[in-house]
Amino acid sequence: MGVADVGEFGLIDRVTTRLTYGSSCLLGPGDDAAVVAAADRRVVASTDVLVDGRHFRRDWSGARDVGHRAAAANLADIAAMGATPTALLVALCIPADLDTAWVEELADGLAAEAALVDAGVVGGDMSASPTLTIAVTALGDLAGRAPVVRSGARPGDVVALAGRTGWAAAGLTVLSRGFRTPRVLVEAYRRPEVPYQAGPEAARLGGTAMIDVSDGLLADLGHLAKASGVGVDLRRDAFAVPPQMRDAAQALGVDPYTWILAGGDDHALVATFPATVALPDRWRTVGRVVEGGGVTVDGDAYDGPAGWDHFR
Amino acid sequence: MGVADVGEFGLIDRVTTRLTYGSSCLLGPGDDAAVVAAADRRVVASTDVLVDGRHFRRDWSGARDVGHRAAAANLADIAAMGATPTALLVALCIPADLDTAWVEELADGLAAEAALVDAGVVGGDMSASPTLTIAVTALGDLAGRAPVVRSGARPGDVVALAGRTGWAAAGLTVLSRGFRTPRVLVEAYRRPEVPYQAGPEAARLGGTAMIDVSDGLLADLGHLAKASGVGVDLRRDAFAVPPQMRDAAQALGVDPYTWILAGGDDHALVATFPATVALPDRWRTVGRVVEGGGVTVDGDAYDGPAGWDHFR
Repeated sequence: MGVADVGEFGLIDRVTTRLTYGSSCLLGPGDDAAVVAAADRRVVASTDVLVDGRHFRRDWSGARDVGHRAAAANLADIAAMGATPTALLVALCIPADLDTAWVEELADGLAAEAALVDAGVVGGDMSASPTLTIAVTALGDLAGRAPVVRSGARPGDVVALAGRTGWAAAGLTVLSRGFRTPRVLVEAYRRPEVPYQAGPEAARLGGTAMIDVSDGLLADLGHLAKASGVGVDLRRDAFAVPPQMRDAAQALGVDPYTWILAGGDDHALVATFPATVALPDRWRTVGRVVEGGGVTVDGDAYDGPAGWDHFR
Repeated sequence: MGVADVGEFGLIDRVTTRLTYGSSCLLGPGDDAAVVAAADRRVVASTDVLVDGRHFRRDWSGARDVGHRAAAANLADIAAMGATPTALLVALCIPADLDTAWVEELADGLAAEAALVDAGVVGGDMSASPTLTIAVTALGDLAGRAPVVRSGARPGDVVALAGRTGWAAAGLTVLSRGFRTPRVLVEAYRRPEVPYQAGPEAARLGGTAMIDVSDGLLADLGHLAKASGVGVDLRRDAFAVPPQMRDAAQALGVDPYTWILAGGDDHALVATFPATVALPDRWRTVGRVVEGGGVTVDGDAYDGPAGWDHFR
């Protein structure tokens, strides 16, 4: 059944019955606005938008996958401040001929990803549009801590990574060449595995700066380096190429480090810490903060593609 | 200059330098997320999306007007909970050939409308898209009060309106017939005058239910009546037709009550109050809450168009 057949309010009813709201939700969907707990008198808030054909393709990802990805992209931004997500709001623009089942499965994916961190979809809006578009706002709680911003890195800090990079980009390359396997790579693209707990952990450990890897490790560390007025030097040998990725890279004729260093969408967290901090296993040291500016690999400029610009 | 020429990060720089953040903003744009004060340990949050050609037309409204309208639609939702807005986040989807000046003026309009309530644009996202789309999330503060929800109206309450209805719909009809005057109606469509302060005021006065009039008075009171399990009866004589609206209605062959009772987009606030409450001048009594269900006018069903469904 198409969304035009059930109408705006019919579709809203179908979607909201599928949602869970999380323990921070004080008033959920159905009113002019939601009310969400903000325990420490501040709220962390971030918005990300996904556009059909640009951030996802419906022939490459199911609706549920798109829901997971849309939620993950926003929840990772909250984690990258050192905060715990509390709620999502979703603005959906839907072509009138889209099947309602697609929208319902999208809602399932959003809700399932948010449930991983005890958050929920507490509000939203829907409109018809020629372009399927999903704009998600995530809210979060800092539990009394200072936010871990991009600008706090200092020369001498270590650079550490939680989560993985290159997997989503490898999966995207696989799909873009018309393949559906290796499944582990394709699934990594469809549903990122975000190390949400590592965000607040970095804040507790005294992380000096942090960013979520959405555009690619080099590009995002470039943002962090610029904001902090420092340089970052990565150690290439800190990035072992996993066997599945190595095999796929060979078959597809791709340098796997292009995926690992420049590929986005895995939503790893990369942070800087004073060299004296003992990092838990979840955090892998991958480089150090240096004087100067920009991001280098083993002291040299990286000459592959560096990241993603949404207008180019 | 087109947005593709300056790129995503160039455009973000151009826009963020034009923004003001409001006094609740603790950390503004430029990091993974913003941080906003939530003084009473709760945050009110609402999302609305505007789609080019559906919610606005670039030949009918300037970019600054669209910014005002996009902000107003969301800020009014916060006010309709009895809350004071604190911040906006904006997800912008932009055709690659759109002029950067349009985006800059949109940002000016968003910021100017938010500044009316000491809120600011504290974060956002941008993407290229074939369809110009503006998704806005507004945050707000209840100052320790309970939210005024849709479901609290009780038989015997009075129904009162703050702000105006029919003006935006009249302006839209004028524009859709190819005219540019009366200017007062066209401007009402382009930039709604939202009675933001009336929202928290209604909460302080003991309002039992409230909603923002975005779809039309009958439709939105219908939502309130349904949520409260009551009926609402409006008095037609409470709605005088202003002279400019009467003249335009006559010239265009429209029943002006269609604008006043069923026209949306003025973002008036309509609330229910115990009959004992002495209402300030800003609140005009327009009807009463009755047993039963649905919305009537002078005891009868209204037989004009009732409101707006975004998929029909």
